[in-house]
Amino acid sequence: MSLPPSATPSPIQAYLDTLHREFSGLTAGEVATYIPELAKVAPDGFGIVLATVDGQVYEVGDARHAFSIQSVSKPFVYGIALEDNGRARVEQAIGMEPTGDPFNAISLEPGTGRPLNPMINAGAIAAAALVAGTTEAARLARVLDALSAFAGRPLDIDQAIFESERDTGHRNRAIGHMLRNYGIVDGDPEPALGLYFRQCAVRVDCRDLALMAATLANGGVHPATGQRAVRSEFIEPMLSLMTTCGMYDYSGSWVYNVGLPAKSGVGGGIIAVLPGQLGIGVYSPRLDERGNSARGVAVCRRISADLGLHFLQPPRPSVATVRARYTLQSVRSKRRRTAAEGRQLDALGPQAEVFELQGDLRFATLEPVLRAVVAGAAQITVLDFKRVGHVDGGAARMLAGLASRCAALGHQLVLSRVRRGELLAGLDAMLAPQAIPVVSFQPALDAALEWCERRLLARPADRGALPVVLPLADSRLCRGLTADEVGQLQAQLHRSQHESGALIVQRGDPADAIYLLAAGEVSVIVDLPGGGHKRLSTLSAGMVFGESALIAGGQRSADVRADTAVDCWSLRAEVFERLKLEQPRLAITLLHNLLSSASETIGRLTAEVAALEG
Amino acid sequence: MSLPPSATPSPIQAYLDTLHREFSGLTAGEVATYIPELAKVAPDGFGIVLATVDGQVYEVGDARHAFSIQSVSKPFVYGIALEDNGRARVEQAIGMEPTGDPFNAISLEPGTGRPLNPMINAGAIAAAALVAGTTEAARLARVLDALSAFAGRPLDIDQAIFESERDTGHRNRAIGHMLRNYGIVDGDPEPALGLYFRQCAVRVDCRDLALMAATLANGGVHPATGQRAVRSEFIEPMLSLMTTCGMYDYSGSWVYNVGLPAKSGVGGGIIAVLPGQLGIGVYSPRLDERGNSARGVAVCRRISADLGLHFLQPPRPSVATVRARYTLQSVRSKRRRTAAEGRQLDALGPQAEVFELQGDLRFATLEPVLRAVVAGAAQITVLDFKRVGHVDGGAARMLAGLASRCAALGHQLVLSRVRRGELLAGLDAMLAPQAIPVVSFQPALDAALEWCERRLLARPADRGALPVVLPLADSRLCRGLTADEVGQLQAQLHRSQHESGALIVQRGDPADAIYLLAAGEVSVIVDLPGGGHKRLSTLSAGMVFGESALIAGGQRSADVRADTAVDCWSLRAEVFERLKLEQPRLAITLLHNLLSSASETIGRLTAEVAALEG
Repeated sequence: MSLPPSATPSPIQAYLDTLHREFSGLTAGEVATYIPELAKVAPDGFGIVLATVDGQVYEVGDARHAFSIQSVSKPFVYGIALEDNGRARVEQAIGMEPTGDPFNAISLEPGTGRPLNPMINAGAIAAAALVAGTTEAARLARVLDALSAFAGRPLDIDQAIFESERDTGHRNRAIGHMLRNYGIVDGDPEPALGLYFRQCAVRVDCRDLALMAATLANGGVHPATGQRAVRSEFIEPMLSLMTTCGMYDYSGSWVYNVGLPAKSGVGGGIIAVLPGQLGIGVYSPRLDERGNSARGVAVCRRISADLGLHFLQPPRPSVATVRARYTLQSVRSKRRRTAAEGRQLDALGPQAEVFELQGDLRFATLEPVLRAVVAGAAQITVLDFKRVGHVDGGAARMLAGLASRCAALGHQLVLSRVRRGELLAGLDAMLAPQAIPVVSFQPALDAALEWCERRLLARPADRGALPVVLPLADSRLCRGLTADEVGQLQAQLHRSQHESGALIVQRGDPADAIYLLAAGEVSVIVDLPGGGHKRLSTLSAGMVFGESALIAGGQRSADVRADTAVDCWSLRAEVFERLKLEQPRLAITLLHNLLSSASETIGRLTAEVAALEG
Repeated sequence: MSLPPSATPSPIQAYLDTLHREFSGLTAGEVATYIPELAKVAPDGFGIVLATVDGQVYEVGDARHAFSIQSVSKPFVYGIALEDNGRARVEQAIGMEPTGDPFNAISLEPGTGRPLNPMINAGAIAAAALVAGTTEAARLARVLDALSAFAGRPLDIDQAIFESERDTGHRNRAIGHMLRNYGIVDGDPEPALGLYFRQCAVRVDCRDLALMAATLANGGVHPATGQRAVRSEFIEPMLSLMTTCGMYDYSGSWVYNVGLPAKSGVGGGIIAVLPGQLGIGVYSPRLDERGNSARGVAVCRRISADLGLHFLQPPRPSVATVRARYTLQSVRSKRRRTAAEGRQLDALGPQAEVFELQGDLRFATLEPVLRAVVAGAAQITVLDFKRVGHVDGGAARMLAGLASRCAALGHQLVLSRVRRGELLAGLDAMLAPQAIPVVSFQPALDAALEWCERRLLARPADRGALPVVLPLADSRLCRGLTADEVGQLQAQLHRSQHESGALIVQRGDPADAIYLLAAGEVSVIVDLPGGGHKRLSTLSAGMVFGESALIAGGQRSADVRADTAVDCWSLRAEVFERLKLEQPRLAITLLHNLLSSASETIGRLTAEVAALEG
């Protein structure tokens, strides 16, 4: 019953195959005949291609059959005009209102003569006139290069189509002269017309269209080549005009029924864009009465309905932005504190509150976070960005506002694990001068927690503090031992000092001794699977590390590094073995104390796992 | 320098305050004068309100000043028409194309007389004619109830405005008769006109508008009252028409510059909707030459730019859908396995692959998951839904396709932690018959992992299997003991049997003994902070539980329940204390073995924390 995986397509491919079979039966519409070359096209060609913003392409049917791009070129050349002239200049020459008129209407604004939008021929010719370049050849190269960047491969011109367009384009030539009449085009309109005829004759296939659409969906960067085809700021105006004017006088119905910015061409192509996600290309040259590919419209309606692509479908509020929320009362840094400090932090902990954020930060996803911070009473707010994908300008502006509020209240704002370049630049530019000192960036959540603890304990910095030596008898390991036994134990210990930063135990070394900290602090550090490393714990005087030496006899599983000047005792495993035989009561107490400590660690780790698995 | 928090507004409130101050200076435009009552309005009224989809409202200025809703009622009455008649009937009576004409144009489709869209007066009157109800009063109540549900409070009609509209509405009356002429309205147009005049005279304030917009953003459910105002399937057509036709002949520019579905009224109100996120209401009665609130347009342009609300702004691909990916070779269930089983799973583990998913599953976010599954070689695929917010229809369709592929290949698909009602209904309807048996739903990831292990080990089910009693000497606790010592220990142990399901250790009980499993299996279970419970581990013969009794002497921190019939020994803490004194070598070995076991547990938990913290 079962087949090899290679014979079994992906569910997405299987879906497209089914779609193609089903819509092959739809043979309504006629190929364009207004120029002789277009009338020669095989009417039953039919391709569907989906391209994702990370470059995956799914294709079915005549995906590699070449045809002329025609009006699908219009939003792209409009993008070139924006890049070459800026928004203000282009908006002065070309409007942005749908016409309500059929596809071949001239539609100039009464009085000004400004074409109503760049998706009709008049506006497209005006856009072609705005392409930069000192010669006709340079302007053509500019257009071809840009379209090729969108497609991700070099495109060329179908010379026969071009000549046919040029020789029969009387209506377009009339439009050119009307534009000249109103001063929308300076000088002779013929070069702009020539460029327009050529841009319409650019040869593409359905796969090109899908990738051009995916490049728009991907903010202007081609998903496969990584090349930027247009500046990202111009994507929004290009897609806006495709939304309102891209499908001629079917544009309103298209938004209503399909809900994707799109553009059609009389060559039979349609592109549709789901911003941030997908590009769709369909090729089928039979056109409906509005000049759109009949199968293309039908297929896009179906894909949108089946796959839920309508851009006004209410996006479910994604996962809550606040992934976890707690105060320093319940969660601490990995630095182990003395009992006295612990009690202080128990009391002061509610003053520092941590919000672990996730997802993309936009105005609307950040708003509940701001609301919670404003409603809360904490004087230090930690926002952790580890799981934040992107911070947009609106969210950065509101974070700057939060910093201003903190400054006014004498509060602090700690931003933890902000990726370099993601937020710093945007936020820095928006921060009010008085808000700058209240914002602290911390590279790790653990560091942010420790920063809060120091602040709450009013300790400027632990590093470099003079170690105080704890008497052996006061250490946890010696709990329950008589003074004599402590003396007997001490005789078996080796004393050593380490400078701040020194590696005391190295991962991979033989585990042959346990250590007891007499003064100073050490951190236990492991390598992470994905690279980097992580502090498991920070220990201070009286605490034990390297216990596994007594039982496993294997290798060290972590590094232990001195955070300060460190004074410690060590007990060699072989000495402990002797103690077991010679002083069993002493050994039993030591084992009991180690087991007790291990049991506490298990309790702490179990709680941590439960909290993380949430 | 610092202020009390109450005196310091939220950053969002501070932003709106600034905006209101700044745009108060903009006094362009004139109040509507086409009916005498409207001309009486104070021209400088100005309010701005933002409402989130969870009901938070930020307001500034004249947010509670009453005015007439006018054309802002149109999308809502269109929604009523859709609910009362279905899409097909409504689409037959009213088109969905922008007109390109000024706001007071009649704009009927040549030939059919169908109004081009429901946002112009002709289309709105046709929509009013489609409101269900046997009497005029019933139809008016229907409209008032629906608008009130959108606003979240009872709305009423400004009688003076209504009478003024009725007495001077000659143009609208002409439209009514044109619609009658074309058969768009059956019979006397006067009732539809009366309803239309009344709907335009409904009294709202700016806060109402923001909440009506937020109700649209929230899929038709009022954010504060929780009441559904319109069926969710009609949100998409309502917002589509607001997008293409909501701002009269400024609609194209609005999409270009603001990029939010919107509607304006000559009363001075504008609503704008960011689907899934926000509703905006602005009130300022000075209108520009297109009939839109001049300040309203300016404020919305600014808010959209400042906060990044344009709906065609490329949404960054959110966090990757695959949060973690691993095979059974590296991650196992909490069921502890024998060494032999462990080796089998080491070899077979790559056959089962787990994908922990996160975020919302749409076609585009699921696509990379499908791609990875198809590219992989595993025969069992586990998809974990714990952190999935929502699964839309497109994603459900593709999951059904994946199940079909699994069926064809003889593979298995395990869906773990799917919330009830979220996916089951949608998926069940789409699954091909042969795909049904290959899909297994598991309530916990741990259960899914164990399901995979059983499958890989070809063990149908462990529960109910006849326990095999392990000799005491073979248990880990006795490692290193002589046969005599084992005998001495056994004499101190208490033997007990428990039925499957029995609670052996209860959380909160005094921890006074450790247990050694001789036969059968038990699970250690803790309560989770957020409710529910979690299996920490499953133990089998030879393993120890309740060790903390030997050191802490406190209370049990977890339940231990028999998964099968269970046979076990227990050692009371007081007996162990006696052993320490009387047989120190035996006690040392037991402590050593317990410490060794605890050390392994610490290693396992540490790795788990590191993996979870990722």
